[in-house]
Amino acid sequence: MATASASVFASLSFEQKLDRLAEVAVRIGLGLKEGQELVLTAPTDALPLVRRITEHAYKAGAKMVTTFFSDDATTLARYQFAPDDSFDYAPTWYYDAIAASFKSGAARMAIAGANPALLKSQDPNKVSRAGVAVSKAYKPAMELITRHEINWTIVAAATPKWAELVFPGEPEDVAVAKLWDAIFHASRITSDDPVAQWREHGENLKRRVDFLNAKRFHSLRFHSDDGKTDLTVGLADNHLWAGGGTTAGNGIYCQPNIPTEECFTTPHKDRVNGFVTASKPLSHQGTLIENIQCDFVNGKIVKATATAGEEALNKLIATDEGARKLGEVALVPHASPIAESGILFWNTLFDENAASHIALGQAYSTCLIGGEKMSDEELAKLGANESLIHVDWMIGGPTMNVDGVSEDGHAEPLMRGGNWCD
Amino acid sequence: MATASASVFASLSFEQKLDRLAEVAVRIGLGLKEGQELVLTAPTDALPLVRRITEHAYKAGAKMVTTFFSDDATTLARYQFAPDDSFDYAPTWYYDAIAASFKSGAARMAIAGANPALLKSQDPNKVSRAGVAVSKAYKPAMELITRHEINWTIVAAATPKWAELVFPGEPEDVAVAKLWDAIFHASRITSDDPVAQWREHGENLKRRVDFLNAKRFHSLRFHSDDGKTDLTVGLADNHLWAGGGTTAGNGIYCQPNIPTEECFTTPHKDRVNGFVTASKPLSHQGTLIENIQCDFVNGKIVKATATAGEEALNKLIATDEGARKLGEVALVPHASPIAESGILFWNTLFDENAASHIALGQAYSTCLIGGEKMSDEELAKLGANESLIHVDWMIGGPTMNVDGVSEDGHAEPLMRGGNWCD
Repeated sequence: MATASASVFASLSFEQKLDRLAEVAVRIGLGLKEGQELVLTAPTDALPLVRRITEHAYKAGAKMVTTFFSDDATTLARYQFAPDDSFDYAPTWYYDAIAASFKSGAARMAIAGANPALLKSQDPNKVSRAGVAVSKAYKPAMELITRHEINWTIVAAATPKWAELVFPGEPEDVAVAKLWDAIFHASRITSDDPVAQWREHGENLKRRVDFLNAKRFHSLRFHSDDGKTDLTVGLADNHLWAGGGTTAGNGIYCQPNIPTEECFTTPHKDRVNGFVTASKPLSHQGTLIENIQCDFVNGKIVKATATAGEEALNKLIATDEGARKLGEVALVPHASPIAESGILFWNTLFDENAASHIALGQAYSTCLIGGEKMSDEELAKLGANESLIHVDWMIGGPTMNVDGVSEDGHAEPLMRGGNWCD
Repeated sequence: MATASASVFASLSFEQKLDRLAEVAVRIGLGLKEGQELVLTAPTDALPLVRRITEHAYKAGAKMVTTFFSDDATTLARYQFAPDDSFDYAPTWYYDAIAASFKSGAARMAIAGANPALLKSQDPNKVSRAGVAVSKAYKPAMELITRHEINWTIVAAATPKWAELVFPGEPEDVAVAKLWDAIFHASRITSDDPVAQWREHGENLKRRVDFLNAKRFHSLRFHSDDGKTDLTVGLADNHLWAGGGTTAGNGIYCQPNIPTEECFTTPHKDRVNGFVTASKPLSHQGTLIENIQCDFVNGKIVKATATAGEEALNKLIATDEGARKLGEVALVPHASPIAESGILFWNTLFDENAASHIALGQAYSTCLIGGEKMSDEELAKLGANESLIHVDWMIGGPTMNVDGVSEDGHAEPLMRGGNWCD
């Protein structure tokens, strides 16, 4: 067993730490296979990490690494200068190519790090239309990801604007260094042998998943001590809990998120009732949505409010029929290293691993028994939701209690005060 | 008429100069049409110019700008760490997407600036195999470019490694600043109204092109005072001279190269005879090939030597049957601003506009009367060469003389001592 040895990690150079993160991303995140191709997306600010990941991918036998960069400044230039009808367009030829790469065997890695508040001051209507256009164009590729047909992962890189949001008031270089440090710790690469530590972490999550799968709960009830949430989330028929890695359809074992602390499954799209209050802000397409409150009746949001970004929230849930229903429910203990750090990352990859959460939109077919091979109709019959979107938001925290409820109505305490009961 | 006003240009900030180059690239280089999409490729070091070009493209009404970045460090990582069979592979799904974007109406811009000596120390066999793989995968998109079916252009950005090669011994920031300055001057953006100056420059080249087209020469004879070259280049039947801009198949007038100083046409692939010595080094796929000497018999290279990079040269001309034949011949006066600067750029975009040159490989069908609409067979019958490659190299200079030879053998002096006779 690898033991945490923070003093050794602290003595490493920044380049060595970056190299560790890259190695974990390639070996644990992707499980990249010899001869496999890698398609990588990254913000331009993440170039140093891209270079380290590319090296590790080739060392692992990658046939080719192709990186597509996004750039916050050029994204903003579009909102400032492009003609209005630009916002209903997305380059299908590009997204089709990504799907084609997946079909020909490529693995997929995304580096997160764009400024979460980039589009805060832009017209929410344009932001929403551009999002819908991309979702439609990206659908064929996205389905291969949500169905886990290929091995994929997401890791993060600290970037100046993101760091400024997480550590306001600090000089840029200090904020970026602090955010890198937070990413390294949250991503569990600080022990002497991070690859071995990750294997152990995955096994621990797997044990929790096995326990939940054996229980066959009919629903989960989230009820908080502060009275802000009392939500019953029915689970899909034949639902399957997942967490701690997955074997993709191409046979490769991967960790789709680095970090990951969650056990998650597919709710029943028509069996969610009650009210819920978000415990953290949601950063969606560059807009910050704060203090979300929603009422659910028979699976559907019937009322949604927010103290900031309410227009973006309402546009989001109006994307399509499935956008106002749940596609994921996840349990995360308040004792996770990310929750313990106390840092609000303004980024789902981290914040969703600090708290139990729900997601609006598309369900993961892999969270249903035999779901990978089912048609959309078969999945819907079991209660799996379908949508162009998949947006997680946090509802857990130190006051949250969760019960597992069996079909006969018997409630078993799973979490109290935000942590596992056992 | 715009007048050169170097003092005003010198007083501009670097950002303002960059903005001018971007404006000329979008408005003159591409002639970008309102509602048109733009596909841009660029080295990661060219990000500041990418941002200015993206702004000008959206201001000109672009529907979407998509930039694909290349990165010298990750290219090198492949040569250092990738498995051997990686070098016979190119991502067809990516190049097919580029072709699909062109077919759906996109314009194409490339920013040149990669380190010309990047692959100098790499295995020439791997470099050549990787080049062949890309050429094959890129062919459908490349044909739309060589046939000028879409509006496209190339501009340059100064990058540290390239600047180091052009200005050896200078500190990095000084070398980069000098190279930017050389690019700005060579790209003709230093007058008060560079867009107007470019229109005038294009008209001057057009007048020269009209003169050459009216002459209907049967061949050109290049003979240098130093005795190192005596080459007769037969011209294709129904050849057409071009220069100073072109109307693409999509009806948009563009300047495919910024800078451009050349008048060029299609040679007859079987009617080139004699010997020729390169007047400048050739940088090909990161390898520098110096002092090329070739003997031609009936269009084909029968002997090729170089004092450096000879292996790369011989691999290049072994790419396919057409790789040892000519696809372009171009006349450039020694009085061009680039030749006058005396700078060896180690980059074809600039160096080919400093001297008359020839190109091995694929011919431009647009340099034949009605060529855009001809089949490959019809083009070949007129003498147009076909190949996966198109590589220019310089043969002109202050000692070069060029005669235009009519079908009856009458020779008319076109250039003496490297400059136009009239």
